[in-house]
Amino acid sequence: MRVEVIAVGTELLLGQIIDTNSSWIGEQLALAGLDTHLQVKVGDNVERIVSAIRDALGRSDAVICCGGLGPTQDDLTRQAIALVLDQELVFDEDKADLIRHMFGSRGRDMPDNNLLQAFRPAGSRFIEQQPGTAPGLVCPVSSSGEASGGEKVIYAVPGVPWEMKEMILGTVIPDLRDRSGETAVIRSRTLKTWGQSESGIAELLSDRILELDELGNPTLAFLASGIEGLKVRMTAKASTDDEADVLLADEEARVRRILGDIVFGADDDSMESVVLAALGAADLTLAVAESLTGGLVASRLVDVAGASKVFRGGVVTYASDTKFSLLGVPEGPVVTCEAAEAMATGVRKLLGADVGLGLTGVAGPESSEGRPPGTVCLAVDLAGDISAIELRLPGRRQQVREFSCITVLNLLRSKLEAQGPTSQ
Amino acid sequence: MRVEVIAVGTELLLGQIIDTNSSWIGEQLALAGLDTHLQVKVGDNVERIVSAIRDALGRSDAVICCGGLGPTQDDLTRQAIALVLDQELVFDEDKADLIRHMFGSRGRDMPDNNLLQAFRPAGSRFIEQQPGTAPGLVCPVSSSGEASGGEKVIYAVPGVPWEMKEMILGTVIPDLRDRSGETAVIRSRTLKTWGQSESGIAELLSDRILELDELGNPTLAFLASGIEGLKVRMTAKASTDDEADVLLADEEARVRRILGDIVFGADDDSMESVVLAALGAADLTLAVAESLTGGLVASRLVDVAGASKVFRGGVVTYASDTKFSLLGVPEGPVVTCEAAEAMATGVRKLLGADVGLGLTGVAGPESSEGRPPGTVCLAVDLAGDISAIELRLPGRRQQVREFSCITVLNLLRSKLEAQGPTSQ
Repeated sequence: MRVEVIAVGTELLLGQIIDTNSSWIGEQLALAGLDTHLQVKVGDNVERIVSAIRDALGRSDAVICCGGLGPTQDDLTRQAIALVLDQELVFDEDKADLIRHMFGSRGRDMPDNNLLQAFRPAGSRFIEQQPGTAPGLVCPVSSSGEASGGEKVIYAVPGVPWEMKEMILGTVIPDLRDRSGETAVIRSRTLKTWGQSESGIAELLSDRILELDELGNPTLAFLASGIEGLKVRMTAKASTDDEADVLLADEEARVRRILGDIVFGADDDSMESVVLAALGAADLTLAVAESLTGGLVASRLVDVAGASKVFRGGVVTYASDTKFSLLGVPEGPVVTCEAAEAMATGVRKLLGADVGLGLTGVAGPESSEGRPPGTVCLAVDLAGDISAIELRLPGRRQQVREFSCITVLNLLRSKLEAQGPTSQ
Repeated sequence: MRVEVIAVGTELLLGQIIDTNSSWIGEQLALAGLDTHLQVKVGDNVERIVSAIRDALGRSDAVICCGGLGPTQDDLTRQAIALVLDQELVFDEDKADLIRHMFGSRGRDMPDNNLLQAFRPAGSRFIEQQPGTAPGLVCPVSSSGEASGGEKVIYAVPGVPWEMKEMILGTVIPDLRDRSGETAVIRSRTLKTWGQSESGIAELLSDRILELDELGNPTLAFLASGIEGLKVRMTAKASTDDEADVLLADEEARVRRILGDIVFGADDDSMESVVLAALGAADLTLAVAESLTGGLVASRLVDVAGASKVFRGGVVTYASDTKFSLLGVPEGPVVTCEAAEAMATGVRKLLGADVGLGLTGVAGPESSEGRPPGTVCLAVDLAGDISAIELRLPGRRQQVREFSCITVLNLLRSKLEAQGPTSQ
């Protein structure tokens, strides 16, 4: 079963928006055992969308169109699909009511053009999931009398990522697997690491990579992901869920043995979620004092559901004098381990937490206090047990901030692990 | 002149890497007055690359292949182009010497497979710029005897972004403009707005859109960009820079007249940079107290170069009791305008700033204090002049946070504008 993805939007061709949707869809298709050999971006022009869909249907069994389902004159995917299918667009009263209701429940007036979204090509159906106001479509294509017999299909999903994702996972992938008769199970698991470069990890795992090249299954891939850490992804194919899970569990155990404690989590874990969970298990609360990261650590922490059980809050002492007045940092240079330690202790006490983190440094582009960009001092105060490190991080402003964030949390993680579970 | 872009690499289809190259190339083509109607991603498979290039040549005058020029077995772009052209790959001694020399000068041994990169299809030439070890190619395609007469062309550039960019700007775009005889200048300008939905803006501008549809130049496009606001992009084409600038200036004046004060900036402005600039001009300093946004406002502010002149810092009072103890918020419910106001005033005083912002609310997914997710209270204390609003924002946790962030800054912007420039 061959699937192609067409991302619709002139803004994608002009580089005003990066097309991340096709990449995400490609990943999900691969995980479902479905091939995708071509992905296309096309502008908001009905003729060109029609050609792109026709060409894709000529090469493939299924086409997923992403974007162009909104209510404006630029949103042409519905019309293009109707032209490809040679079908009328029919108005769906129930869908119109639903869209009106969605606007009403948010206390907003609905501009009339939103009702354009209640049209669908005759013979198609709406996708059940509809997290936003734009409905998705499943449009079967009657086979053109050729020997193949099989029916092809066009899907349309909105370009808004979270709306698109819900529809792809909820309807498109299950429908494609049904159509394909694909029964092989593909499972993957991602280990997340911090503390080694991509080539360093490749060297550590080089023997195992050679073995797996022979075996062909499972496979390993690496991906440097900035503030998310460096990922090691294992993918296994098998005829049943259980077999795939056994393969993966075995591979995970091997890789963990080789990589040791640079592995901080798996799959949906983030450094923040792992640290918050460890603090929660030890019944400890956290506060953060930030200078160069300006609130990044705090905002990453509160992105974790349930953070409020552990995270009490933080301060952003961006102007130097606020470090002295608010956190009791001794007056003097502030890009030092001593200042970072004083910040960690100061915020721990100020917010009544068990653990304090302190981050200070030079994000760049200019030097500060004679220290070059990338110089950062990170400290952890774990109930009075204080430690700090000074690092010279590579990269630009944003990267220095992101690496500071994951590194200080990793420092706390190591400290908690070294200390072991506290008595409850 | 029609140009298509083909990004080569299985990792792009599988979502392991996001294809940002085509987007960047698309932007450069547009700025050079060259159309790009289709962009394609294809995997590391020689037959599929050949088909993709043939299909693109059928539709267009020029094809830019990006990626697949490295020295490994997966790098197949050179071979695919040779097959499309029906030409041999010829070995270029000079290029081989250059590649050997590049390795030598970096003190590295050259693996032999790097010499694969010294092959080029007969009849093609190497691109002059070569910042890395992978050479680029310019491959003219003899026209197939059709009436059109014009010669088509295939370019190949590496997938490494900085190598690709140097070749596109240094050779590909100038060569394309020569071939096309294109002398028109294209300029664009983006206005950024906050306070209206995409369909609301489309309705406000509907008369002008109809006029422009007739005229064909300049053009308008809208783009909802989350925390960046909603963008209105104007693009003008003319024979000289001056003419294009006049068209754009005229259009900008019209659009600004129609949209009024929902326009907060243009081009590289962000809500943060505009607010920081306005505060700087009025010689005012800023502090921020955040609850549901957890440091997002502060971290966005410090992303602006020069923020330290205005931004003193912030506090993240995530646990309710820290709002009471640190900011003097009266004990009681904290999702109220009164609490937001007390936070704004509290942080202003705590950090010795002229202006304080306070954000509190329910990011979701659960309700809090009986208030549904999306309920937010935002306050500004401008040197004792305090105002607050309560809103019900749509979307999920992250979107509620992002909208809260841009909305509270917009509130401050309006207040500063209403107040007018202060005496210096």
